[in-house]
Amino acid sequence: MDVAPDWPAAQPLPVFEHQQARFAEGLLLDCGQRLDAFALAYRTYGTLNADRSNAILVCHALTGDQYVAETQPVTGKQGWWTALVGPGCTIDTNRFFVVCSNVLGGCMGSTGPRSARPNGEVWGTDFPPLTVRDMVRAQQMLMARLGVARLFAVIGGSMGGMQVLEWAATFPDRVFAAVPIATASYHSAQNIAFNEVSRQAIAADPDFLGGRYWAEGRVPARGLAVARMMAHITYLSEEALTQKFGRKRRREDSKAASFFGDMFEVESYLRHQGSSFVRRFDANSYLTVTRAMDWFDLSAEHDGDLAAAFAGTRTRFCLVSFTSDWLFPTAQSRSVARALNRAAANVSFVEIETDRGHDAFLLDEPDFRRTVAGFLAGCAEHAGIG
Amino acid sequence: MDVAPDWPAAQPLPVFEHQQARFAEGLLLDCGQRLDAFALAYRTYGTLNADRSNAILVCHALTGDQYVAETQPVTGKQGWWTALVGPGCTIDTNRFFVVCSNVLGGCMGSTGPRSARPNGEVWGTDFPPLTVRDMVRAQQMLMARLGVARLFAVIGGSMGGMQVLEWAATFPDRVFAAVPIATASYHSAQNIAFNEVSRQAIAADPDFLGGRYWAEGRVPARGLAVARMMAHITYLSEEALTQKFGRKRRREDSKAASFFGDMFEVESYLRHQGSSFVRRFDANSYLTVTRAMDWFDLSAEHDGDLAAAFAGTRTRFCLVSFTSDWLFPTAQSRSVARALNRAAANVSFVEIETDRGHDAFLLDEPDFRRTVAGFLAGCAEHAGIG
Repeated sequence: MDVAPDWPAAQPLPVFEHQQARFAEGLLLDCGQRLDAFALAYRTYGTLNADRSNAILVCHALTGDQYVAETQPVTGKQGWWTALVGPGCTIDTNRFFVVCSNVLGGCMGSTGPRSARPNGEVWGTDFPPLTVRDMVRAQQMLMARLGVARLFAVIGGSMGGMQVLEWAATFPDRVFAAVPIATASYHSAQNIAFNEVSRQAIAADPDFLGGRYWAEGRVPARGLAVARMMAHITYLSEEALTQKFGRKRRREDSKAASFFGDMFEVESYLRHQGSSFVRRFDANSYLTVTRAMDWFDLSAEHDGDLAAAFAGTRTRFCLVSFTSDWLFPTAQSRSVARALNRAAANVSFVEIETDRGHDAFLLDEPDFRRTVAGFLAGCAEHAGIG
Repeated sequence: MDVAPDWPAAQPLPVFEHQQARFAEGLLLDCGQRLDAFALAYRTYGTLNADRSNAILVCHALTGDQYVAETQPVTGKQGWWTALVGPGCTIDTNRFFVVCSNVLGGCMGSTGPRSARPNGEVWGTDFPPLTVRDMVRAQQMLMARLGVARLFAVIGGSMGGMQVLEWAATFPDRVFAAVPIATASYHSAQNIAFNEVSRQAIAADPDFLGGRYWAEGRVPARGLAVARMMAHITYLSEEALTQKFGRKRRREDSKAASFFGDMFEVESYLRHQGSSFVRRFDANSYLTVTRAMDWFDLSAEHDGDLAAAFAGTRTRFCLVSFTSDWLFPTAQSRSVARALNRAAANVSFVEIETDRGHDAFLLDEPDFRRTVAGFLAGCAEHAGIG
């Protein structure tokens, strides 16, 4: 019985030079600590128009990054939202100036646990705890740096959708349109529970070394792979897994092939997901960012009243959920829509029929594309963008 | 940020003397290996009547055991099905002779990876791969030993339900009534995926030592705890987690209490589940038994035709599922019901409305109790049991 796959050998993540904005002024975090000089790595697509009115901020999810619509330099794979973003695409880079930055706390060039602190040592687990609002405040500083006082739109799925909601709540006058996709106004007990198992899997890896693995040139590869494997199941739906893999076996070697020896294809697939993730993601970032998701609760920031988070908003909202998404089920988007209605906001809400689970927001789902494209077109008309 | 709970120190599981039946004749397993002399640990409740017609076999789930309706000796907690089994209860031990045995491959006294092989060494990962049918064949030998040629009923949930279905398919003339609860005729891709993550968490623990932890007096406590934490989420429902924990924090110490320091209660709960599990369960058993579940596919044993598994059956079936069970959803029970109908079997199927998830089968759900009690009463009348 094979229970010992070849996880990648423990080795530091590759380091790339990323396009970065540095902020010497630092940032006072929600935890009360001040983060001194920090950097955000980002990518832009398209051109900012003369009146600086056509900027769209794309917010990435937990393990996403700024490489939205181009090759990701570590994996060599195409960007995570090429299904939606590009010239002539749903989010048309011929028309809009699209920006995406790696979140604060991330590991693709933005300041995070993997970065050096002022004394030259790697932050590791000493990196201060972050909130989604901290991430959004940093993004706002980036937009100001890029000369964008007001965003035409903020758009993102999953944790990206949390950022969209936080943008609309924290900077209501700086967001013309908001598209929170497959998300929620707070992280549910079930999602906190899954994140906690991820964290425990990482902490249980002997190469984690209490978070100080960098100092020893080690990486908690096995724990991080287990965390990713589990998370990956939650991104799919039972139907998607059944259709894609069912109970099919993978015959590695015809001589060794046997009922008891062959792995199920779904196992092989998950192992691959785990091992490729380890090559591109930092374990301490995973801890920091999952914690930020767990702490996210927009109504708690407004005395328990979600509608109060959006009081007086003039932002136009388009909420999107997916029928087979059980990580951020439709009911959670619906409760955001209700709060926006109570706040008399301009809101539309579309539930897309799909069997592809939470990951549907990353995929080429025609109804989803049409929904986003239609909303952006309508908003562009109202905003007077040619 | 607390990411390092106190898992139990690595130490061998406590060993208890269990009521055992020993089978010197051994058992030829589905994998082709013969298991020489083996033992099943079991418990009985109530009295076998004069014509030996009132025996009910209760089949336990993945991490259950034979202590159905009495204190479990390792944990000191009450048996896992005290909600249903006992004098005057749904499964009335004043009326029925109730038997439950620890499954072959288990770790509560039946022969499994934790047992010594003929040469005196612990089996560990050399224990042969098992199927659910192997478990059932061993149970049938136990029933013969106890003088029961024909069971009045076989009843069980989850993996216990798989055993019930296998009993009805393999020994149709030895089962008067069958109650498969919250189960399926095959393990789904999603369930295989979750099991695989559990196995990887165990294998990633440095104390696993390739399965030979016994030899070094160690236990892969962290990996096993992570596996249990994840599995535990799948046993509950989102609603149950929300109602029980929501986003409540646990304040360990008022001085240290802070937004960023306090654990969510659901995290604390899961850690407790993980650490208490490690004290009572053997990691190699977990691998063996989860594998048996993954391989379970009753229709594959009958050329892909589930109805053929039950051709000509005279057993009376009562299938039960729970609305909020997403591990073994209602659709899977329904497909078994359809196959039984195609086989012209006597079958009833009840979906119980509950928000308690898969674990509902272990809990005091009045509709569930009434369903089982009513079915057993009707069958007892047909069987002529006074």
